[in-house]
Amino acid sequence: MHFINQIKAGEQIREIYLVKEVKQLTTKNGKPYWNVTLQDKTGTINAKVWDPNSPGIEDFEAMDYISVMAESQEYQGNMQLIIRQAKTADSGDYVPSDYLPCSEYDVDEMYSELQRLIDSVKTDYMKKLLKSFFDDADFKKKFCFSSAAKSVHHNFVGGLLEHTLSVTRVCNFFAKHYTFLDRDLLLTAAICHDIGKTKELSPYPANDYTDEGQLIGHIVIGAEMVRDHIKDIPEFPETKARELIHCILAHHGELEFGSPKKPALCEAMALSFADNVDAKMETMRETIYSGTASSPTTWKGMNRFLGTNLRGTTPEE
Amino acid sequence: MHFINQIKAGEQIREIYLVKEVKQLTTKNGKPYWNVTLQDKTGTINAKVWDPNSPGIEDFEAMDYISVMAESQEYQGNMQLIIRQAKTADSGDYVPSDYLPCSEYDVDEMYSELQRLIDSVKTDYMKKLLKSFFDDADFKKKFCFSSAAKSVHHNFVGGLLEHTLSVTRVCNFFAKHYTFLDRDLLLTAAICHDIGKTKELSPYPANDYTDEGQLIGHIVIGAEMVRDHIKDIPEFPETKARELIHCILAHHGELEFGSPKKPALCEAMALSFADNVDAKMETMRETIYSGTASSPTTWKGMNRFLGTNLRGTTPEE
Amino acid sequence: MHFINQIKAGEQIREIYLVKEVKQLTTKNGKPYWNVTLQDKTGTINAKVWDPNSPGIEDFEAMDYISVMAESQEYQGNMQLIIRQAKTADSGDYVPSDYLPCSEYDVDEMYSELQRLIDSVKTDYMKKLLKSFFDDADFKKKFCFSSAAKSVHHNFVGGLLEHTLSVTRVCNFFAKHYTFLDRDLLLTAAICHDIGKTKELSPYPANDYTDEGQLIGHIVIGAEMVRDHIKDIPEFPETKARELIHCILAHHGELEFGSPKKPALCEAMALSFADNVDAKMETMRETIYSGTASSPTTWKGMNRFLGTNLRGTTPEE
Amino acid sequence: MHFINQIKAGEQIREIYLVKEVKQLTTKNGKPYWNVTLQDKTGTINAKVWDPNSPGIEDFEAMDYISVMAESQEYQGNMQLIIRQAKTADSGDYVPSDYLPCSEYDVDEMYSELQRLIDSVKTDYMKKLLKSFFDDADFKKKFCFSSAAKSVHHNFVGGLLEHTLSVTRVCNFFAKHYTFLDRDLLLTAAICHDIGKTKELSPYPANDYTDEGQLIGHIVIGAEMVRDHIKDIPEFPETKARELIHCILAHHGELEFGSPKKPALCEAMALSFADNVDAKMETMRETIYSGTASSPTTWKGMNRFLGTNLRGTTPEE
Amino acid sequence: MHFINQIKAGEQIREIYLVKEVKQLTTKNGKPYWNVTLQDKTGTINAKVWDPNSPGIEDFEAMDYISVMAESQEYQGNMQLIIRQAKTADSGDYVPSDYLPCSEYDVDEMYSELQRLIDSVKTDYMKKLLKSFFDDADFKKKFCFSSAAKSVHHNFVGGLLEHTLSVTRVCNFFAKHYTFLDRDLLLTAAICHDIGKTKELSPYPANDYTDEGQLIGHIVIGAEMVRDHIKDIPEFPETKARELIHCILAHHGELEFGSPKKPALCEAMALSFADNVDAKMETMRETIYSGTASSPTTWKGMNRFLGTNLRGTTPEE
Amino acid sequence: MHFINQIKAGEQIREIYLVKEVKQLTTKNGKPYWNVTLQDKTGTINAKVWDPNSPGIEDFEAMDYISVMAESQEYQGNMQLIIRQAKTADSGDYVPSDYLPCSEYDVDEMYSELQRLIDSVKTDYMKKLLKSFFDDADFKKKFCFSSAAKSVHHNFVGGLLEHTLSVTRVCNFFAKHYTFLDRDLLLTAAICHDIGKTKELSPYPANDYTDEGQLIGHIVIGAEMVRDHIKDIPEFPETKARELIHCILAHHGELEFGSPKKPALCEAMALSFADNVDAKMETMRETIYSGTASSPTTWKGMNRFLGTNLRGTTPEE
Repeated sequence: MHFINQIKAGEQIREIYLVKEVKQLTTKNGKPYWNVTLQDKTGTINAKVWDPNSPGIEDFEAMDYISVMAESQEYQGNMQLIIRQAKTADSGDYVPSDYLPCSEYDVDEMYSELQRLIDSVKTDYMKKLLKSFFDDADFKKKFCFSSAAKSVHHNFVGGLLEHTLSVTRVCNFFAKHYTFLDRDLLLTAAICHDIGKTKELSPYPANDYTDEGQLIGHIVIGAEMVRDHIKDIPEFPETKARELIHCILAHHGELEFGSPKKPALCEAMALSFADNVDAKMETMRETIYSGTASSPTTWKGMNRFLGTNLRGTTPEE
Repeated sequence: MHFINQIKAGEQIREIYLVKEVKQLTTKNGKPYWNVTLQDKTGTINAKVWDPNSPGIEDFEAMDYISVMAESQEYQGNMQLIIRQAKTADSGDYVPSDYLPCSEYDVDEMYSELQRLIDSVKTDYMKKLLKSFFDDADFKKKFCFSSAAKSVHHNFVGGLLEHTLSVTRVCNFFAKHYTFLDRDLLLTAAICHDIGKTKELSPYPANDYTDEGQLIGHIVIGAEMVRDHIKDIPEFPETKARELIHCILAHHGELEFGSPKKPALCEAMALSFADNVDAKMETMRETIYSGTASSPTTWKGMNRFLGTNLRGTTPEE
Repeated sequence: MHFINQIKAGEQIREIYLVKEVKQLTTKNGKPYWNVTLQDKTGTINAKVWDPNSPGIEDFEAMDYISVMAESQEYQGNMQLIIRQAKTADSGDYVPSDYLPCSEYDVDEMYSELQRLIDSVKTDYMKKLLKSFFDDADFKKKFCFSSAAKSVHHNFVGGLLEHTLSVTRVCNFFAKHYTFLDRDLLLTAAICHDIGKTKELSPYPANDYTDEGQLIGHIVIGAEMVRDHIKDIPEFPETKARELIHCILAHHGELEFGSPKKPALCEAMALSFADNVDAKMETMRETIYSGTASSPTTWKGMNRFLGTNLRGTTPEE
Repeated sequence: MHFINQIKAGEQIREIYLVKEVKQLTTKNGKPYWNVTLQDKTGTINAKVWDPNSPGIEDFEAMDYISVMAESQEYQGNMQLIIRQAKTADSGDYVPSDYLPCSEYDVDEMYSELQRLIDSVKTDYMKKLLKSFFDDADFKKKFCFSSAAKSVHHNFVGGLLEHTLSVTRVCNFFAKHYTFLDRDLLLTAAICHDIGKTKELSPYPANDYTDEGQLIGHIVIGAEMVRDHIKDIPEFPETKARELIHCILAHHGELEFGSPKKPALCEAMALSFADNVDAKMETMRETIYSGTASSPTTWKGMNRFLGTNLRGTTPEE
Repeated sequence: MHFINQIKAGEQIREIYLVKEVKQLTTKNGKPYWNVTLQDKTGTINAKVWDPNSPGIEDFEAMDYISVMAESQEYQGNMQLIIRQAKTADSGDYVPSDYLPCSEYDVDEMYSELQRLIDSVKTDYMKKLLKSFFDDADFKKKFCFSSAAKSVHHNFVGGLLEHTLSVTRVCNFFAKHYTFLDRDLLLTAAICHDIGKTKELSPYPANDYTDEGQLIGHIVIGAEMVRDHIKDIPEFPETKARELIHCILAHHGELEFGSPKKPALCEAMALSFADNVDAKMETMRETIYSGTASSPTTWKGMNRFLGTNLRGTTPEE
Repeated sequence: MHFINQIKAGEQIREIYLVKEVKQLTTKNGKPYWNVTLQDKTGTINAKVWDPNSPGIEDFEAMDYISVMAESQEYQGNMQLIIRQAKTADSGDYVPSDYLPCSEYDVDEMYSELQRLIDSVKTDYMKKLLKSFFDDADFKKKFCFSSAAKSVHHNFVGGLLEHTLSVTRVCNFFAKHYTFLDRDLLLTAAICHDIGKTKELSPYPANDYTDEGQLIGHIVIGAEMVRDHIKDIPEFPETKARELIHCILAHHGELEFGSPKKPALCEAMALSFADNVDAKMETMRETIYSGTASSPTTWKGMNRFLGTNLRGTTPEE
């Protein structure tokens, strides 16, 4: 594929790109034209359709994949495409993951590890609950394609899986380290804590809040999903169900962060820490160590989410 | 009945009272005795069992109703009972409402009015939902016996009904006054907004948080109850269900007051105001105008819940 | 009148508009020209004066009404005027309400209703106080022309009257619903609560904070106005005067919103709720249901004042 | 006078004391008696009236000055009086300042210094305003007898004068140091900033909030007093009056401390600092260096008002 | 040893106890006596010295160890000692750990594990720094005897060591899990993060804030200690020293918790989480699972530090 | 010197300016050119280098002083330079203070006054400490060249000296006014309170946070500097050293403003007030009365740092 970050001036491009934004404008002479932003997973590029009447130009909108015939040129220091033809692409002609930011880790490997952690849960009704979600092919597909957030951190395909796995590993350590913790409850809660995000956010490339996400939110959605599945497991003790749902409701740790209850069980407290530390460490990693960041030891400027300036440490000498 | 606030020194008392607290102590001479607090709806009185071996004294605990034979006397300016006999009373021998603080309004009349408001809801599936709760005898019994809070305001038998009716009336007014409001959605939400309290608090005389109340809380419990009933009404539109549940989740108005979402619909905003104004006006009424308060125009001292000193207004001259 | 939202390309325009902004600039060739924004109640339009020396062009400033002779053209997708002549208009030649956002309700009808509410106040000295303001022609003129805020909500001619009437109606309902409320005190306070705004904000089209508004603020200004008028009503009891002034001082409900006292009387609490609910419901109405808003059920984006995203409810099916 | 802190066991006391509290109680044998707390400026003492029928015992209440005939004795390590006779004292028979905590400084000298500062104000209408208060004998009497607070700091006779003088001196320094400050405005505001306290608090010995204090508060009361006096000085410019009143309204510095406006003028900012620093320094002085405190360099424990533990510095070696 | 929780009525006691509190009082007859609270690690007991003139009674103060000869008796349901003789004990005659709450873990084993973690640090200058503290016998003694707090959590002998070890283990896990973390920096910071507590709190049994603790606080004290030791390690890079000191300064995570800087390095963020999770998990463990707590699954009541009610989970069925 | 605010169109300029920003761009025709912002103490000017190949054009970067040969012209109402030649200037050819904002006061006079205040400190070890800083030529140079902040207030060469002197004078007054204050401690603390800023901010023209500033901050840096110097004064009492360092640590007054301790000594409290009042008064002065501000009595708009609109007072009439 001809990735956007490899386009040079003077090339003839025939490729499928994702339309991020399209706006119709008028030149000073009153001629209409289109200003388009195209994207793939390596970045975005500005493009113009000067002659909308040229044969083969079809209507398209943001979030469409379009097959373009175009020429590249440099304009004011940036690369730009002049589109000659453009039509919406058939869904079989492209691989969405070429167009979207993705986890650096292999989705299948992460999912396998999550399933091994599910298998390590000893209480039968808990394991049954987990399998009712994670052995379901539709759920798996949605879960693996979701991000963990609209912005801030883990905002990429596979982000929800990556974040869930990481939080579960941290909880697994906590269960070993703080021996009074109920490991089965904690792991089950950790694995389920963000499943509501599969409904709170629409799938990529939109990745925006759904109506349900705006009105109910992933915390209560997730609690409802767990509660519904528990109804099909009659031997699931009522008290244990309440404890599990409490852990999900309380996982943001404080009322002002959207949890309707503060953690009242040790497992709920441990989960809220694991979730919080993972979100913050990933935010730092993306800011300091991601491919597009400046040299790690350079100060990155004020980070709104963390409320401070950031930099990476210097290497040991 | 021989109400506690009418006992005078030197009387022989034979009556059933509710045990609020009982503690075994030892006199300076090493003799065991019991210190008991008895209550009825008019107040509480201190009582002593000096001779636990006297015939007819049975074991009893806090929250028991006991039938006592006793003498009254004044001690350090307060009335006191010396108990000679005490045995737990049969549940048919007393009327709980004689022992518990009750709404000043007639429960049946309030319930009838609430049902008239339910009948005024025009959308069929909404009315069906409301009737699925309020035409159910078990639900009605619990609902009418509950308080609206463990303390602060409406802490009496019938308090939940009184508060719900009042909030619904305020919302009914808002629906007329702000014509863009969806009256059916608003009234349905108002009537259901606190139904989770039937499970958050245990019944009187305990009136304390249940395990479910501590772990889940009445906001999410109420949302779950509504969601469960909607499942049995297949024609209930999904979007409308979401809007209704949003109103219940958001009725505390702010995240820090335990709502997992802030009001995003006009009806959710109107309900949160109606709930808040009713809680605050009732708090003021109980502090300033209730039977046990000092003269209304006297300053009452700092009120913790309202964060200010309070008094009633002077009469117009 | 030739309203701005009806101008099409290629028209000759002779009309009076309000100048919102005017700036003198220089072309690349060093020639001075003016960039002007004109407004009427339907919107704004950009205009240029390329030749300031052409006969008939007079000096004008922002907030002037000017009579222009101009041609319309489309430029970069927007309509634009090229002004040939421009002179300040005589105040008799235009109707200010054509140029300013106005209440959707009839000002006279609203005022009549407010006066009926004043007539319903039974306590003589209270009614006398209200009439001393609202029977005064100068006060009436200012009051009816004011907005209720510089921005956020009720920011239009008649906004102060509309908001005051609405708050008074809500208080009228509260007085019926919460029977311990002193209706005369509450209504008098409601009707007077924002009269300080007639001095806090300058009249339209400026509608900006006055020096007095910045230094004293409408809360204390309003309290002073009431206090001054009470001095002319010798039979007004001192305690009642204090209670009324307290209601005005406390109507923002919390110190951090500019009230120097929190509500310590039931009437002050009720008024602060009525004021708050009316401000928030109107903000929602303007955002969701006003003429310029997108379809009501579309999410409107984060609202700063309310701290949440908003949408209107779906219609009952 | 026989001061309370000098009473020894076994003395016959004939003296006038101030009644701080009086409660009627009943002995175990059912006999009524009185428990009384008496105070003078050196402290308080418990007293009993065992025989209320003894000749010469009159009715008295808290805040009365009573002339007692009594015997002193030690009871459980504390001194106690057994009262034989008690009658309310004539106001000419005692000097209130013997019974109340007083400023360590001479009231007349402080007042003279304040008047010299008034004389140093150059703008005629400002000086006239100040003299309209401080040359008024009634105002002077109230002002000199008031405390600056109900508790926390400067809670003694003369406290308001002492605090006002100190704040004015600090402002006088600020006017010299920050040369852009308008000295006349600043000094006038400083001298008047707390005059509302003469009406917010009732006179000693009660020293409690008045009804006006609760409902209006000293900030707005003070602004009203200044405004009323300005009305009698026709040459006082309106803008200057607004600036002065703004300084008084804003002198608590932040809305959450009860100022309806934040300081928007340099003089208002300077005054709010002078007021705040004087309150905090005096709180520290009373806690660390007052006669009843432990050795200055001992840690005093958490101070609620200042939010920290406190101690005095060690002497330079 | 005759532990306090095993004393029965009517025993002759000869044992050494720690004086927690001592107060001189006077009987109704005017006779002086002493009221004493004695403690050992199993609890506290009230004791009286009725005859201070009896031979062998010496002066003693709170925090003294005294050897008593006494009789036990029951008084108002509690055990009590009547002391006949009392003299301060020689420091060789008792083992302090019999009198003080201690870690449940073996101090030597914990210290050995901490030293193994120190040995695992690969960067020479970091390891040298750690050994300069932890190979110093005086430091070790203080460090092992300290609590991690005056109250709230880890308030026992060995508490600082136990908390430090636990935080270091959590950081060790983080370093493996978040591979971009600089393990040597993180472990060094974890091991040193609370060393300032050896100077902030006085040794047991007082365990109270020192003057240095009050004025400087363990965060800055710890940073100073590290900085002083680094001066003796000339090859320690300046930047690395700054990063390490930053981690210590920022380990409370937020300014309002006393850190003068928020975490700006990933390692500082990870350490602040490890410290916080360990403090909260231990608080929960002490409240729910410690020997003196009620059954784990019972609700424990509002916990001030955590801001919520707490209980342990029910066992898996 | 040819100051920027005096350049007129059509001049030939040969002058040295400071480069604030330089960016390489490409014209529509693909030709590279440079867009440069030049500054001196009177302002900034836009400049272009159209032909980078012209003889004599050297490489330069932001923060370089360059000697330019250029022509001035007006472009879109602003003055602009067309640079023909540009080379970096020798450090002897320009006076930095011509290019940087400077204190309005003479640095030497301010320094002399500060030294007189140092001389007035009576305690030998304190004076010795102060002289160890202020008699050191290197320290003096840095101290006099520093600003007191990166933005907000005193952001100019000499700002740290001006602010320090002003705070010290205020403290000097406090020491006279509040006689229980330890003047030597207070003055020493005042003079040293911000010395950490010499290391927190890099020297002008960058004036940005250093790595040490970001990680440690001027509060702890200052405390360390004082502590290091005290080590060389063996007679400095330990307790006094702690008190002095406490004053520096606590000078921001509240934990959330970055002080790791709240003021626990009177002197620490006085210093935090002096620092705060000086920062706020200078912010007001710069906003209202500085050369570039509009007429003082005009409202200046919302000031972010002070949270309010501002204006200067009207002149006394």
